[in-house]
Amino acid sequence: MARRELSKSEEKLVNALSRRRERERQGLFIAEGVRVAEEFLAAGIDLQLALLAPSLEDTARGKHLARTLGRHDAVRHVSDHALERLAATESPQGVLLAGRIPRQQWPHAFASNAVVLVLDAVQDPGNFGTLARTAAAFGVAALIALEGTVDPWNPKAVRAAAGASFRIPILPAQPDRAFTFLREHGFRILAADAHGEELSVPAAGRNALIVGNEGAGLSAAARAAADAVVSVPTPGPVESLNVGTAAGILLYLLTRERAD
Amino acid sequence: MARRELSKSEEKLVNALSRRRERERQGLFIAEGVRVAEEFLAAGIDLQLALLAPSLEDTARGKHLARTLGRHDAVRHVSDHALERLAATESPQGVLLAGRIPRQQWPHAFASNAVVLVLDAVQDPGNFGTLARTAAAFGVAALIALEGTVDPWNPKAVRAAAGASFRIPILPAQPDRAFTFLREHGFRILAADAHGEELSVPAAGRNALIVGNEGAGLSAAARAAADAVVSVPTPGPVESLNVGTAAGILLYLLTRERAD
Repeated sequence: MARRELSKSEEKLVNALSRRRERERQGLFIAEGVRVAEEFLAAGIDLQLALLAPSLEDTARGKHLARTLGRHDAVRHVSDHALERLAATESPQGVLLAGRIPRQQWPHAFASNAVVLVLDAVQDPGNFGTLARTAAAFGVAALIALEGTVDPWNPKAVRAAAGASFRIPILPAQPDRAFTFLREHGFRILAADAHGEELSVPAAGRNALIVGNEGAGLSAAARAAADAVVSVPTPGPVESLNVGTAAGILLYLLTRERAD
Repeated sequence: MARRELSKSEEKLVNALSRRRERERQGLFIAEGVRVAEEFLAAGIDLQLALLAPSLEDTARGKHLARTLGRHDAVRHVSDHALERLAATESPQGVLLAGRIPRQQWPHAFASNAVVLVLDAVQDPGNFGTLARTAAAFGVAALIALEGTVDPWNPKAVRAAAGASFRIPILPAQPDRAFTFLREHGFRILAADAHGEELSVPAAGRNALIVGNEGAGLSAAARAAADAVVSVPTPGPVESLNVGTAAGILLYLLTRERAD
């Protein structure tokens, strides 16, 4: 069977999908790296194009992935050099997939002790990905990306999320809509800030945790909506934790209590 | 007073310092961004060269920094375009400093409840920086970077550390030397892994926490040295947390207990 090569128009598509506007217009995104590609396929994402390079065969997991994709119509073979030129992340590990952005549904019902994570203008794609990964690890029910937040389908965000992008509902929203929705569903709204009160975890109930922008912190809308502003108490001299680390500790505390 | 421009040899120096070997040979490193530059100066790091670009004046903090540096012999004025070309990080915010790597001393004495963080081949500079920042926030006594770990003075690591590089002793070491040192000083050695036991925090005592490589996890040497392998219990379906998030939660638990 002939190995198909990448056409000029396909190459153009991959390049175009590095831009948010094109991703939104076409409803497509890019996933790079072995682990993300594995989770992409496991989640049943609609595959449009799969670029494979020789270095994918360097690891057992890569070989397995190449075999899984083997005869798919979407597979194109490219050089490692070409793949690295097309990729948004530093080591694509010989694989880049283009797929359809999953249709996001706002949940209708939540567990009595559900936790939702709200991102209020988090701008770094690596931070977004880490937050999505942490949210999935702690069984968070949904991730709401408020206006001003980096595109959840940015290739670097998808890479850092390590597959969590496909495991948790990611809901872009205006602040008003998001906070109204959370109140209607009985969520207590907690906003994370370096200068809040120590988190006191309730025995039960639904909690939404808002984390703010890396530089500017919480927006006025988030502060106004919050029932409480909470912090991780730190004894050291540095003023604040990285947003991903702070959210990780707060989600740990919120979900651990829940399990007791 | 004439504004000095960057000479060819100075430009060459900045470029050379993007490589680990050159940093080690010359004992110099690069710091980029307003916050890191502020902490660099506050820590009294020996300043060799300060590149300032017009965009530094875009913020009040940047203006203040420019005034602080104003008459220093090391100041050179460059265009924003030139600074971005020379910088290792994405938005240098109009400032790049070159300075002498602080002389690292192994501590002679530790508090009875000291915590040390050990990095066992952590390779991503962003992860290194987040870990250093978290360690400083939780008052960790030292950060030991075992063989195979990214250079602590990599410009991206220094940027992500947000000044923590200058606030905490960072000690590169061979595993044997590090583990012998920790035992001699009465540390219990805990190794973090996705499949360990839930961390049970002792009421007192010194603890060293080892975190492993992003892909391969803990080395055999780290496993052999560990008194216990510990995890953050996660209820969700994702197999593991990002190394920075996992270490953040474990350091929170180790240092919180200490404060009680």
